[in-house]
Amino acid sequence: MNKRIVFYSVGRILQCEGILMLLPTIVSLIYRESGWIWLILAASFAFGLGTIARISFKKCDRHVFAREGFAVVALSWIFMSAIGALPFFLSGEIPNYISAFFETVSGFTTTGASIIPDVTALSHGNLFWRSFTHWVGGMGILVFIMAVFPSESGRDVHIMNAEVPGPISGKLMPRLRDTAKTLYLIYLGLTVLEIVLLLFGDMNLYESLVHSFGTAGTGGFGIKSDSIASYSTYSQWVITAFMFVFGINFNLFYLILIGRATVALKSKELWCYISIVAVSVVVIAVNIFSIYGNLADTLKHSAFQVAAIISTTGYSTVDFNQWPELSKTIIIILMFIGGCAGSTAGGLKVSRIMLMFKTVKRDLRRLVHPRSVNTVRLEGKSVDNDTISSVGGYIIIYMIIFFATFLVLSFSQYSFLENFTATATCINNIGPGLGAVGPASNFSGYSYFHQLVLSFTMLLGRLEIFPILLAFAPSTWRKK
Amino acid sequence: MNKRIVFYSVGRILQCEGILMLLPTIVSLIYRESGWIWLILAASFAFGLGTIARISFKKCDRHVFAREGFAVVALSWIFMSAIGALPFFLSGEIPNYISAFFETVSGFTTTGASIIPDVTALSHGNLFWRSFTHWVGGMGILVFIMAVFPSESGRDVHIMNAEVPGPISGKLMPRLRDTAKTLYLIYLGLTVLEIVLLLFGDMNLYESLVHSFGTAGTGGFGIKSDSIASYSTYSQWVITAFMFVFGINFNLFYLILIGRATVALKSKELWCYISIVAVSVVVIAVNIFSIYGNLADTLKHSAFQVAAIISTTGYSTVDFNQWPELSKTIIIILMFIGGCAGSTAGGLKVSRIMLMFKTVKRDLRRLVHPRSVNTVRLEGKSVDNDTISSVGGYIIIYMIIFFATFLVLSFSQYSFLENFTATATCINNIGPGLGAVGPASNFSGYSYFHQLVLSFTMLLGRLEIFPILLAFAPSTWRKK
Repeated sequence: MNKRIVFYSVGRILQCEGILMLLPTIVSLIYRESGWIWLILAASFAFGLGTIARISFKKCDRHVFAREGFAVVALSWIFMSAIGALPFFLSGEIPNYISAFFETVSGFTTTGASIIPDVTALSHGNLFWRSFTHWVGGMGILVFIMAVFPSESGRDVHIMNAEVPGPISGKLMPRLRDTAKTLYLIYLGLTVLEIVLLLFGDMNLYESLVHSFGTAGTGGFGIKSDSIASYSTYSQWVITAFMFVFGINFNLFYLILIGRATVALKSKELWCYISIVAVSVVVIAVNIFSIYGNLADTLKHSAFQVAAIISTTGYSTVDFNQWPELSKTIIIILMFIGGCAGSTAGGLKVSRIMLMFKTVKRDLRRLVHPRSVNTVRLEGKSVDNDTISSVGGYIIIYMIIFFATFLVLSFSQYSFLENFTATATCINNIGPGLGAVGPASNFSGYSYFHQLVLSFTMLLGRLEIFPILLAFAPSTWRKK
Repeated sequence: MNKRIVFYSVGRILQCEGILMLLPTIVSLIYRESGWIWLILAASFAFGLGTIARISFKKCDRHVFAREGFAVVALSWIFMSAIGALPFFLSGEIPNYISAFFETVSGFTTTGASIIPDVTALSHGNLFWRSFTHWVGGMGILVFIMAVFPSESGRDVHIMNAEVPGPISGKLMPRLRDTAKTLYLIYLGLTVLEIVLLLFGDMNLYESLVHSFGTAGTGGFGIKSDSIASYSTYSQWVITAFMFVFGINFNLFYLILIGRATVALKSKELWCYISIVAVSVVVIAVNIFSIYGNLADTLKHSAFQVAAIISTTGYSTVDFNQWPELSKTIIIILMFIGGCAGSTAGGLKVSRIMLMFKTVKRDLRRLVHPRSVNTVRLEGKSVDNDTISSVGGYIIIYMIIFFATFLVLSFSQYSFLENFTATATCINNIGPGLGAVGPASNFSGYSYFHQLVLSFTMLLGRLEIFPILLAFAPSTWRKK
């Protein structure tokens, strides 16, 4: 293990975080809040610590291999969250540091689960920072750095692989840096588009910014206790559309940008995603029609909640806790599916689910015709056996972590429904669960110990498990 | 597909079922109940239909390939259950045929989930038949036939593979028929031992027989509304011990029989199974101590319930629904683990869980050292990649079926807790769930449609999914 390059790289990320924290500081100053002092203090601390790390470990072998890549990603996300939590804690708006850490991890991992009982009591600066972490975490801060700074090593591919979710990570362009830049430009463009569209509705600039960050990162932090419920139907539909859009593989937007829309529209994952959304919206609409009594409201709420859950954003316009059992079950299943690979969404990802079904189909065929040759194909390309077996392995480790978290949560005051859906919503980076951790409530009922466990569950989910696990394995840190 | 051999083989099994049904008929006659007429009628129907099938399809190619093996197993289990349900239905003791089918499937698959609100209202003959289906289904009726009748084809291995659970099916002896015979002799011997030990307690011969059948098959049907709660502590500990024993791989008993106990005691799966049981018993005991107040009762209830759930028997001495959340969560996790491969227990099987952990460990090591050679070893032997990838594939299809059943159940009157644990208890062949389908209750609250769905979920779980799925795939029935 090349520890020097790891700490050096983490240093660069902390510097970057320090700069990004200037944005909420400015917001705080605009609103003439006293909290700007804590934001600038945290920003200085991040930048200072990062600078010390970069100077101390400047002399290092610049080659990054797989395990260095994983370590950089894991440590960056943990340090970013630990420092990002400071403004909440220092200002006293979240009195306990572990809760502040939970909130920040929930932000960066784009989960959106909150321990704040009354979100309206927070200052504009801190709320802005809270939502901005969604935007930063959505596409990944390391990908951001790759896009902005000239590459210092030829092996960034390991970092990209570790941070971009999905079973197969696509390379848009021959040079990784160009890929990262393109991804961020699309991300920025779509975010700006949403901000503008929201400004046409009943949101002011601040609200448009905050909610666009939450949507783009598929996070779900809002600034009102009832999430999006009190905004206009127009705003709700705009957010519905963008939650849906940010659950789509960004490679497809790139294809559309370069005029190859027909290729993009042939994506099997896209159509599978659209089909799941369409079927869920219709079934839930039929199931909840009697609650709302008219088609417009029924469709609006059904579409909003489906888009919010499958994209793992977690905004809400109604308390789906009050819905009938069938709708709740569909919500739970959508939690596990998640968005498309290469999007900002969490969950298992649509293409991974597709691969799962295809593998099962192949296994069944093999049982009947043991000597036949069966290749699994995805998007027209045959998938090699290593990728298939890695999908199986991922499901296994995902289940182990799921049940381990669920077991630890059962030490809490809550019952099965809360503990199960809290685990599901954190590992899949969604936000609300059901019962006492549902859309109308929050996670403050869990002890600090449980909040810490759930913080790591969120990190495991966002980084697709392996980087975090490897970062804590002693063998990773041994010398070659 | 060689349909003739399939129907011919199913015919032989139905003849066999007819003969086995004479036993409850005799019990019914001994107790001078009128129900013997329905038992003998069903027996004759089974034997008659079987004879017709054997005569009609006598002329056939005797070679059985994989897909014929799967079809024989799937169809046999479905027909056996359909005919086995007749005595309950015809006697009017279960007024609806679908409920009677559910009850019989639950018997043969050794699930033990019941739709009967008051089990004491049933006749001795029918209750005996109900428990006897556990014993027949435990080791498998096709394995039974292999043990008793001379083999007519050289390809019985496909049937054995399809009916004996676990990721790797062991062959005790070079000749399959000898293996089947040995397995059944061990099974019979242990059952007789339990009957004798139970006779020393407060059970009469009838009760000893019924409960030994329920334990040996790891089924769980009893004859009292409170399962085993009203029997003496002695009887409860005997049943605890035998539930534990019937969850162990039968190959180990064979090794002990031929004087190779030291080899048997080296089994990693055995020690893993023992460890899981020991840890669970201790943790639950600590957790529930305040309820019972003394160590003897606490340990008794903890050990009984842990053995009942991990062996997937499902008997109970207390309503664990009333236990604290941690104990309930452990119960739920034990539901999914299940017993050892090659036992009569259901669930995912301990060795499959071990393989899952080992695969994850290998995948993690591979990520750090991409070029290193890592073999997965189980019981000292290296496991080939096909077996490993089949374990991944099995988990995937298991999860798909789990969520599909769960989704269908959400159309019922029950909520998340009931629907989730009903699915878990049926796919893992245990018996009781939590909430309204807990140990103190039954499945009669589900509609006939849901009972039918759960029947197939139990069959899928018992036969480890593939045979049932393949039997319903159109491509299986196409001509070569």
